[in-house]
Amino acid sequence: MADAKIRVTVWNEFRHEKKAGKPAEIYPQGIHEAIAAGLRPDAALSVRTATLDDPDQGVSEKTLAETDVLTWWGHTAHKDVKDETVARVQKRVLEGMGLIVLHSGHYSKIFKALMGTSCSLKWRDIGEREIFWVCKPGHRIAKDIDDHFVIEKEEMYGEHFDIPEPEETIFISSFAGGEVFRSGCTWKRGAGKIFYFRPGHETYPIYFDERVRTVIRNAVHWAAPVANAPKQDYGNRKDGWWK
Amino acid sequence: MADAKIRVTVWNEFRHEKKAGKPAEIYPQGIHEAIAAGLRPDAALSVRTATLDDPDQGVSEKTLAETDVLTWWGHTAHKDVKDETVARVQKRVLEGMGLIVLHSGHYSKIFKALMGTSCSLKWRDIGEREIFWVCKPGHRIAKDIDDHFVIEKEEMYGEHFDIPEPEETIFISSFAGGEVFRSGCTWKRGAGKIFYFRPGHETYPIYFDERVRTVIRNAVHWAAPVANAPKQDYGNRKDGWWK
Amino acid sequence: MADAKIRVTVWNEFRHEKKAGKPAEIYPQGIHEAIAAGLRPDAALSVRTATLDDPDQGVSEKTLAETDVLTWWGHTAHKDVKDETVARVQKRVLEGMGLIVLHSGHYSKIFKALMGTSCSLKWRDIGEREIFWVCKPGHRIAKDIDDHFVIEKEEMYGEHFDIPEPEETIFISSFAGGEVFRSGCTWKRGAGKIFYFRPGHETYPIYFDERVRTVIRNAVHWAAPVANAPKQDYGNRKDGWWK
Amino acid sequence: MADAKIRVTVWNEFRHEKKAGKPAEIYPQGIHEAIAAGLRPDAALSVRTATLDDPDQGVSEKTLAETDVLTWWGHTAHKDVKDETVARVQKRVLEGMGLIVLHSGHYSKIFKALMGTSCSLKWRDIGEREIFWVCKPGHRIAKDIDDHFVIEKEEMYGEHFDIPEPEETIFISSFAGGEVFRSGCTWKRGAGKIFYFRPGHETYPIYFDERVRTVIRNAVHWAAPVANAPKQDYGNRKDGWWK
Repeated sequence: MADAKIRVTVWNEFRHEKKAGKPAEIYPQGIHEAIAAGLRPDAALSVRTATLDDPDQGVSEKTLAETDVLTWWGHTAHKDVKDETVARVQKRVLEGMGLIVLHSGHYSKIFKALMGTSCSLKWRDIGEREIFWVCKPGHRIAKDIDDHFVIEKEEMYGEHFDIPEPEETIFISSFAGGEVFRSGCTWKRGAGKIFYFRPGHETYPIYFDERVRTVIRNAVHWAAPVANAPKQDYGNRKDGWWK
Repeated sequence: MADAKIRVTVWNEFRHEKKAGKPAEIYPQGIHEAIAAGLRPDAALSVRTATLDDPDQGVSEKTLAETDVLTWWGHTAHKDVKDETVARVQKRVLEGMGLIVLHSGHYSKIFKALMGTSCSLKWRDIGEREIFWVCKPGHRIAKDIDDHFVIEKEEMYGEHFDIPEPEETIFISSFAGGEVFRSGCTWKRGAGKIFYFRPGHETYPIYFDERVRTVIRNAVHWAAPVANAPKQDYGNRKDGWWK
Repeated sequence: MADAKIRVTVWNEFRHEKKAGKPAEIYPQGIHEAIAAGLRPDAALSVRTATLDDPDQGVSEKTLAETDVLTWWGHTAHKDVKDETVARVQKRVLEGMGLIVLHSGHYSKIFKALMGTSCSLKWRDIGEREIFWVCKPGHRIAKDIDDHFVIEKEEMYGEHFDIPEPEETIFISSFAGGEVFRSGCTWKRGAGKIFYFRPGHETYPIYFDERVRTVIRNAVHWAAPVANAPKQDYGNRKDGWWK
Repeated sequence: MADAKIRVTVWNEFRHEKKAGKPAEIYPQGIHEAIAAGLRPDAALSVRTATLDDPDQGVSEKTLAETDVLTWWGHTAHKDVKDETVARVQKRVLEGMGLIVLHSGHYSKIFKALMGTSCSLKWRDIGEREIFWVCKPGHRIAKDIDDHFVIEKEEMYGEHFDIPEPEETIFISSFAGGEVFRSGCTWKRGAGKIFYFRPGHETYPIYFDERVRTVIRNAVHWAAPVANAPKQDYGNRKDGWWK
């Protein structure tokens, strides 16, 4: 991807924002537009959006083939995402597409399929203070982020978070109520890089926050696939080195 | 499980051995009986067998509730294992049941569901020499195993093996044809321990081999769940430490 | 170690407690005696203590040869531990001896030698509330521990904690001041298992706390070496499998 | 490092090549010049060399401050590298400098200091065939490398290789004699990325091999530090979030 732009598809369930209420007030054009707006200023990225109610649920073979990094936000409609859609996305991740799973996306079918665990957690939604602490200084995803940052009002997510041991723990959060959460974690599946990033409850303007936007932008750069990654040929090998 | 016995269920697809041919000659009572015979001499274990054509595909809620460690061998009938069966087994693994996946079980629905990857590999079946090298000396699974052991005739499995980076690489194999394979690997999912162990092609008497039996016996001890593991309560937490 | 007892050596710098002051009031016989008192009721363990001012700094070749698990508490005298002492302990860990590093032991020469990092952290000593959250339910080290526990007065340690990515993160702490810390982590080095456990500032009666004692007791069982672990022979191999 | 060039320092013990014999015949200007020649065509890199007998053993504070990635080859003179030199290099790695350790560098003081293990292995030097298998397709370090490549004559290194479990296993080698080796592994220590790469015995022209040069070039790009990585401030924190 040295020269070419990184092709990002920002996917959003886009259901909350269509009903009257806080999410619609905060995100009148949808959460995806707020996330995309945080990425578009980066000249190295070419950004499109997609939503659940688009044809092929927004992630057709063609769209996925043209996507280097996919960001995923969902909450109330995980069950509406078809298994064939999940299979399509998972296949592309294994081929090398980066995946950034946001907030309540922890319960999405695609994240659970890639993790193999329940991805359960504790939660409390009263709008409390969250402090993000950097646990991997120098990591690409923590670029330009100081040793911590604070969000004054967020939904709480608490441990135990039922995920496989992260390959890298980039952020750990504490909440005013005393809970902790591994709020920025990475894994690899096949040739694809996966980043889970916690913030983003639909009733707070989280995706307008510059620190949050910086982390997502960093993660897109980190998760972009490597050019000239030869495909593996699996299956039967007749030949061997017999001499 | 300090005092109580470790309750092992040896699961086998049990299809090859019902047809005339090499598998039936080598394993007249089925592969499961050969694996179980390697475990029964261990007084710390209580061993039962189960097969795909048993009621509830051999793994009913009741059987799983009474199982500490499940071993899984399958090959030609992975697709016949129902999704509800896979879901039942996966749930128990996350609760703490150990799972030992053998040989062609790498393509089983349950292993792929827990790994999140394709679990693809290269293979060649001409009966060639395999050398198992210990990469984690001192590990419970390598107990009583010297720095390597040799099997004269096996099917070859070769890298790339599409699995998440193992948490522990216990054995790496080389084959006469020059290929290599991570033939003994561990992961954790939820409270459950998972061990993949490569040997066991149905046309060779692998499960009568004392070294192979020792490794499986070791793995059962390693994978057994911990007693008094308090259940997690996920979901909404009203309370916090506000003072 | 199936039948034999696990031989534990509880090592303590033992300097604070010899001077007048809070540590001496809380631990009149030394921190090591409080830690040992938490282990002795376990019939599976045989427990001895050792301190910096003992011959061979408490860890002679003979003592180490007779030790399955070593626990290490130090604070003000890390620099007094001789390099040859560190080399002796490190060699035994690589051979399989378990090592449990406690609280300010994060800055001990032996922990830094095994980690390869600075092991630096943030701290504040005003006696604030610490909440330990279990991040690996079902792990041997979390046996009998509920989803969290609270210590009302402790020194704060905060991220970033400069350690290699833990192989397992068992506990994460939050503090009243808002910081977080990976307060229970595991690694393996050679055949040896290592557990770092955060609590234990000398001015609070932490090692009389039943939850803390339970975790250390669990960790000793987890870290005990495996019997019949064949030694590796390194160096020149003349032979190969040439046929 | 987005715009600026990656500053590479190629360090070589440079002792073998000064005596008459095979190494001098193959590498008349020293192994470092052959490695540097494989990097210099890459316009994104600015390459210098350094050797053990240079002032400050080739790695002064100033040189290290101007180095983004350091490659290290040593064999017969590991003991001549001063502890203060090792401390200087280790400090820079923790700050973010990438380190690529080559072949017999597995026994260098700096690699052992960062790993915390003995880094022992088996070996045999008769010039046998080595096959490198890619275990992490799509990784930056495997860019442009097919699923495997073969070197006809190399020294054998065999497992068990006493290293901490790699964070990523990029290559595994098999040898004509039947041994296997994790010949391309990554770790992180502090903000620094570390890659160990096996090939490079001084009696074979390994560093003229295009595949080997490609991997080292890839590794330099992978190991380069991230720009704008804020420094951590460790130590006493007076303030907290008390409200």
